[in-house]
Amino acid sequence: MKITIYNEYLHEKHDEYIKGIYPDGIHSCIAKFLTEAGHECRTGTLDDPECGLTDEVLADTDVLIWWGHMGHHLVPDEIVEKVYNRVMEGMGMVVLHSGHNSKIFRKLCGTNAGELKWRDDDEKEILWVVDPAHPIAQGIGENIILEQEEMYGEHFIIPTPDELVFISWFAGGEVFRSGCVFKRGNGKIFYFRPGHESVPTYHNEKIQQVIKNAVKYVKNDSIAPMTYGYVEPTVEWKK
Amino acid sequence: MKITIYNEYLHEKHDEYIKGIYPDGIHSCIAKFLTEAGHECRTGTLDDPECGLTDEVLADTDVLIWWGHMGHHLVPDEIVEKVYNRVMEGMGMVVLHSGHNSKIFRKLCGTNAGELKWRDDDEKEILWVVDPAHPIAQGIGENIILEQEEMYGEHFIIPTPDELVFISWFAGGEVFRSGCVFKRGNGKIFYFRPGHESVPTYHNEKIQQVIKNAVKYVKNDSIAPMTYGYVEPTVEWKK
Amino acid sequence: MKITIYNEYLHEKHDEYIKGIYPDGIHSCIAKFLTEAGHECRTGTLDDPECGLTDEVLADTDVLIWWGHMGHHLVPDEIVEKVYNRVMEGMGMVVLHSGHNSKIFRKLCGTNAGELKWRDDDEKEILWVVDPAHPIAQGIGENIILEQEEMYGEHFIIPTPDELVFISWFAGGEVFRSGCVFKRGNGKIFYFRPGHESVPTYHNEKIQQVIKNAVKYVKNDSIAPMTYGYVEPTVEWKK
Amino acid sequence: MKITIYNEYLHEKHDEYIKGIYPDGIHSCIAKFLTEAGHECRTGTLDDPECGLTDEVLADTDVLIWWGHMGHHLVPDEIVEKVYNRVMEGMGMVVLHSGHNSKIFRKLCGTNAGELKWRDDDEKEILWVVDPAHPIAQGIGENIILEQEEMYGEHFIIPTPDELVFISWFAGGEVFRSGCVFKRGNGKIFYFRPGHESVPTYHNEKIQQVIKNAVKYVKNDSIAPMTYGYVEPTVEWKK
Repeated sequence: MKITIYNEYLHEKHDEYIKGIYPDGIHSCIAKFLTEAGHECRTGTLDDPECGLTDEVLADTDVLIWWGHMGHHLVPDEIVEKVYNRVMEGMGMVVLHSGHNSKIFRKLCGTNAGELKWRDDDEKEILWVVDPAHPIAQGIGENIILEQEEMYGEHFIIPTPDELVFISWFAGGEVFRSGCVFKRGNGKIFYFRPGHESVPTYHNEKIQQVIKNAVKYVKNDSIAPMTYGYVEPTVEWKK
Repeated sequence: MKITIYNEYLHEKHDEYIKGIYPDGIHSCIAKFLTEAGHECRTGTLDDPECGLTDEVLADTDVLIWWGHMGHHLVPDEIVEKVYNRVMEGMGMVVLHSGHNSKIFRKLCGTNAGELKWRDDDEKEILWVVDPAHPIAQGIGENIILEQEEMYGEHFIIPTPDELVFISWFAGGEVFRSGCVFKRGNGKIFYFRPGHESVPTYHNEKIQQVIKNAVKYVKNDSIAPMTYGYVEPTVEWKK
Repeated sequence: MKITIYNEYLHEKHDEYIKGIYPDGIHSCIAKFLTEAGHECRTGTLDDPECGLTDEVLADTDVLIWWGHMGHHLVPDEIVEKVYNRVMEGMGMVVLHSGHNSKIFRKLCGTNAGELKWRDDDEKEILWVVDPAHPIAQGIGENIILEQEEMYGEHFIIPTPDELVFISWFAGGEVFRSGCVFKRGNGKIFYFRPGHESVPTYHNEKIQQVIKNAVKYVKNDSIAPMTYGYVEPTVEWKK
Repeated sequence: MKITIYNEYLHEKHDEYIKGIYPDGIHSCIAKFLTEAGHECRTGTLDDPECGLTDEVLADTDVLIWWGHMGHHLVPDEIVEKVYNRVMEGMGMVVLHSGHNSKIFRKLCGTNAGELKWRDDDEKEILWVVDPAHPIAQGIGENIILEQEEMYGEHFIIPTPDELVFISWFAGGEVFRSGCVFKRGNGKIFYFRPGHESVPTYHNEKIQQVIKNAVKYVKNDSIAPMTYGYVEPTVEWKK
């Protein structure tokens, strides 16, 4: 499968502590375990022309992974439009953590999905599987315990997810719909909550397993061809 | 209830035949039967400053009805943004017929909802109730038969509706999800398919009944107050 | 509105501590605040002939509330069938707490909804509103904090709820889909998790508010009449 | 994949015309094209002990296909219970045509799914794809045209399908939700409308393709293990 991993790549360059966790950026960490899983991975960042998301790259991408936080506004609207069009065509997406506030995720949701509660206090998060038959939940047992994560709390302004896979518990008393599938056009999008830049979440094997499951799940093998626009009657009739 | 009816108001001014059906515009026809039903109605068109959708009007609107077709691109993006923000806050919307291709409906769907099959051939449409307990379906029996309508056929590029109320049958062999509720932010949107400008659909009593039901259904009486942004822990915990 | 409250009424008679909390039974406590809210309330228990759910009572009930725990098997199958048939016709239901394992709720779910995690340890529960525009969530703020409740934890074997209103957090680390609407036939069912017999949950004003909201929400004012069985063609056609 | 095909096998034995279409029964016709597609197929009928659905067979079945009509009441309740339990565990099901009124399908729906409109008049049916990215819709183009079928018309008393894949158009003016996925417990069920015994629907290549797609889709490769019942706290807390 051809996977493109977009990461704004700002925190990891500007903060020594975060650089310590992801020396080559979050994108490289994700690319590594997905490559080891047999996928063909490209990456793109704000340092690349067109964020690394050129027409050629997008046309050749089965699944696009998205991590962004402080640089959402630096992604040009034309690129957001191109990504959106590819999702409509059937490209899968995995939107990670603070990507909930990216232009592309809000556009796909049709809501202000940037709004939620948060607290960056290295607290315990437990993600519970609420759909044990879902392909994204396989191989991790019934929960994922992260000793230190940023908290995201409800209410999260998303439309009703087509499928809800995980709900998170936080030590400070909040809950969150942490693993949500949305279908838009011919594309599937999986939003996955964990992954704050200051904690080593993407080094966690269960988190890696979820992402490996998710890219398979959101990939479309084929799309039934549809006709749009003016059409002749399918059956004869007379007025 | 305070209802604002937006209609681009182009066909009815430029085409004598259509003017014959809706002499004062589709918006006036809709305003008439909703006023008779006891609602306080305003209208707005492309002829009005800011399409009649000023901040004051939108802030004072419980439900916004939308009809547009050839002038979707003439609605300024800033107005679309304002309408969208009011839906997020809880304003209801009823989007009619070719409004499926409006900027606001596509933005709320998160898809290219403008795409579908169509044929303007005055053919029979039968709308079947598929959710008899739904408030929008009350008072019309089990179907609505329209002798002459434009055809819209699947595939219609919408996300899974939160509620599906009507499915249409067309003489030429096509079907369509004709009555769909979408929830976005705190707002409810009802998309209702019939209403081509060249046929007297909005004079049909059953169609009027559906619209009267729909404005009640999408109106929100109250919204539970939510906190967003940084929050202190809800319960004490220690690391 | 005509409300019937079924409670098996076993714990409150057999356990002095529980009797102290609900001297006349959980059903009487609920009947009291719903009567004060203007509703016409009947109650039924295992002590009554036909559990108090005779044909006459069911036919005259808009909304049926259900609390049961240790006596699910004592409810005759014929009564379950009658309740089911009334839900199909449009009677609303509110299923409380351990009612998740009642014959009627499992029959309406189409799953083994009796299965879940539990722990009876008087621990803190926080119910978070995840749909602030939902009528059932009005008037309680953004959460309900119960200092002592039994824990129910995911995975809860229910079908995807038509609407998810509350998610619970528990001190011991679990989460639960605590407020769920299911539509079955012409009936709406609201499952609401809190309400263990050994804690004074139904004396809590916010919990009372949710139940008051819920009975209004699941009540159907009217149902569109449908034809079933053999029908003549709606339109003429020839082979 | 291990597939078991249950067919009551009554019409094909008692009616010469129907025997002409399916000389060895509908089950044999389906088994033939699924075997050719590489699957391991067993069949069961009312003539077999326990309908061919013994504990051993069910335990060894990935996907169960169900066709029944006049003999629904002849299937013992204990067998229905066993099939239901296997669906909860994760066995897939494909329910065909008049199987909508089987005990097992109604039990899984939680509604009186036997109710619908019907007319047996050899009229044209067109099944339209309404979810072109769905795996069940691949390889058949945008519709399936059946020159002669029995009509089933809405309202069909099913819960909101988790996924809606096909909507049917009928010459006589009706529509029907013809391809519906329901998730129950760990199992997926696909209901597929066409397949009246008096027309050669299961000889149609597109229909065969849908069934081949469906068995793959409803098969579960693995299920995340869940704990149910009493549990110790996941995190420590003190009262």
